[in-house]
Amino acid sequence: MIKVNSRGAARLLARHPWVYKSDVISGPPSPGLYPVQSRQGVLGLALYNPDSEITVRAFAFSPASDPSAVWLEQLRKALRRRKSALQAQPEGGFRLVHAEGDLLPALVLDYYAGHGVMQVGSKALEPLTEAMVGVILEEVPLHSLLAKNDQKSRGLEGLPLEVKPLYGQVPQSVQVQEGPIRYRVDLQQGQKTGAFLDQRENRLRLAAFQGQTALDVFSYHGSFALHLALNFERVVAVDSSRSALERATENARQNGISNLETQEANAFEFLRAEEKRRAQYDLIVLDPPALAKHRRDLERAHAAYKELNLRALKLLSPGGILATASCSHHLGEPRFYEMLAEAAADAHRSMRLIEKRTQGWDHPILINVPETFYLKFALLEMV
Amino acid sequence: MIKVNSRGAARLLARHPWVYKSDVISGPPSPGLYPVQSRQGVLGLALYNPDSEITVRAFAFSPASDPSAVWLEQLRKALRRRKSALQAQPEGGFRLVHAEGDLLPALVLDYYAGHGVMQVGSKALEPLTEAMVGVILEEVPLHSLLAKNDQKSRGLEGLPLEVKPLYGQVPQSVQVQEGPIRYRVDLQQGQKTGAFLDQRENRLRLAAFQGQTALDVFSYHGSFALHLALNFERVVAVDSSRSALERATENARQNGISNLETQEANAFEFLRAEEKRRAQYDLIVLDPPALAKHRRDLERAHAAYKELNLRALKLLSPGGILATASCSHHLGEPRFYEMLAEAAADAHRSMRLIEKRTQGWDHPILINVPETFYLKFALLEMV
Repeated sequence: MIKVNSRGAARLLARHPWVYKSDVISGPPSPGLYPVQSRQGVLGLALYNPDSEITVRAFAFSPASDPSAVWLEQLRKALRRRKSALQAQPEGGFRLVHAEGDLLPALVLDYYAGHGVMQVGSKALEPLTEAMVGVILEEVPLHSLLAKNDQKSRGLEGLPLEVKPLYGQVPQSVQVQEGPIRYRVDLQQGQKTGAFLDQRENRLRLAAFQGQTALDVFSYHGSFALHLALNFERVVAVDSSRSALERATENARQNGISNLETQEANAFEFLRAEEKRRAQYDLIVLDPPALAKHRRDLERAHAAYKELNLRALKLLSPGGILATASCSHHLGEPRFYEMLAEAAADAHRSMRLIEKRTQGWDHPILINVPETFYLKFALLEMV
Repeated sequence: MIKVNSRGAARLLARHPWVYKSDVISGPPSPGLYPVQSRQGVLGLALYNPDSEITVRAFAFSPASDPSAVWLEQLRKALRRRKSALQAQPEGGFRLVHAEGDLLPALVLDYYAGHGVMQVGSKALEPLTEAMVGVILEEVPLHSLLAKNDQKSRGLEGLPLEVKPLYGQVPQSVQVQEGPIRYRVDLQQGQKTGAFLDQRENRLRLAAFQGQTALDVFSYHGSFALHLALNFERVVAVDSSRSALERATENARQNGISNLETQEANAFEFLRAEEKRRAQYDLIVLDPPALAKHRRDLERAHAAYKELNLRALKLLSPGGILATASCSHHLGEPRFYEMLAEAAADAHRSMRLIEKRTQGWDHPILINVPETFYLKFALLEMV
């Protein structure tokens, strides 16, 4: 049994799952899944790791005799919520478990055309691995399942960094279908679990636009650029990683796309140079990595996002479209739209907001847990 | 020629159309459409009314010799942007001109199944009425066009309150098609121009949900409730206006809907009473009128919105859906979502955010003009 103080209890009553070390009165000696209570009685069930700053991560808000059984049942429910999408697109890519957003804190599971990639972020969950793999294989038809536990945050939990197969033969990479496009995901070496599934629907959304020239800044392995190449005559993908661009080129080849150019460059320098030579694009995608990784980076990040957007706006042709994103949780949505308004004002451009978008449905947002909402995605049109 | 100071110039350079009286150095003696300039040169074209607090409302940001011709051309463009929607649904309801959002400040024009309703909010535009009617009739096939100039704000502009036909025979009411539903719009006596077109797509969006019981609070003439009645076994529409509910009942009859009940009641009292008798609904719509009409009302309005949402959340059955809106510009979107998070926390309910929505595409939002964004619409699901 975990005991929390009144501040911890208030958070749990408000359905926020996290209780920090300073609000935990006492707990079991070892990590695991336990009931959590305050003086008011039992408040729910939680992952518990006495060594972690976020000592308590609740996953249920009512009592139950077997916390592990509840956890596995919630895992099953999360997988079943994705079932119809998987059946419709078995060769697609989907997030099957989105941690707190699915009431399964510290657990991420992505699906790439029949191959699963799992990330565990709490020591409390380690003993449950085998049981979780059992549930996953019962619910999802998988050829292989990889534990890609190389995220740095595991160090804070006292967990080793390791990448190891949990089931089947894990290939080096797989091809994933996304609407009309196929792209290759590097399961073992890629960023995160291999791809950025949270932008899937945003990439598909861009199929509504067409024109002469499009620009994809921070293109990674080209996922936006590939979709744009179907409806724009010329597409330029810019990234600072040569290996990402090589995969973009290979992805283009696999899709029979010949109008995609790649540019290895720093995004800021590239945009500055394009402005100098008065380049114009009908559509520009800006999908930078998290520029505000910590709260202390916020002011600098705001300035960097603004510079990127201001420069992109100046490169837009009349009537052009800016598709611009931020995945920094610390740059909240209000701040993101303030930044865009400042950039539009400074660029002397009237910009219509076509749509405010966010992460895909398989990355659920809980309104009680602001940390579950991180991806901002704006579609703007010059008027 | 209108002359503005550097503060006014800064606003116009940032593509915000409004310059207040205190930032206008000099101008023509009478209201009208004029070029506007600062010491930096000509900044654009504007509606000008020396008697209005918002003395300058810019509609273009580059010089031109004939401001009226530019205005009429922009009106034509706005109408053409709606053309394909009108052709697809000539019996539908659409906003054809959304004032600042269409770079046509102070002008609103709605379309109801072949009948137009226009509202003019600036004295500068009065002399252009005939020319505007000409453009409208050229671009849009209309049986009639009504000037519904009864909004109180006209007083501040020194304009009379009047409702008069500008073209054709204006009927008392017309029937409008909205997806599978037809509803009657009172052109002469209804609120605003007769209906709330800004929620059209949000009403259609609710067709994705089904269940036993649904509740539409602040139902007006039942537009949400009618759509819900197609997929829910029992729908309750609550409003404080008997005449609105009578029209809701009549609308239900016209659609062959027999599972819609109406309740004439104060929304707060109704929700309190329903909580007492432990009523449950699978889906609840909360679409209150603007509770924060002025900035000074904000705190009280925040509390009122929170109470409404808190009480609605308590009435939701497990897995239930809350569709909740605010049309108060003064309660900005960040504040709206904070309020919802507070309500969810206080109700001890985990709520997944299915979608953040806003006003329909025919009510354009300019990111440079925050005042053009007013409708917040959240879809939440209890998890």
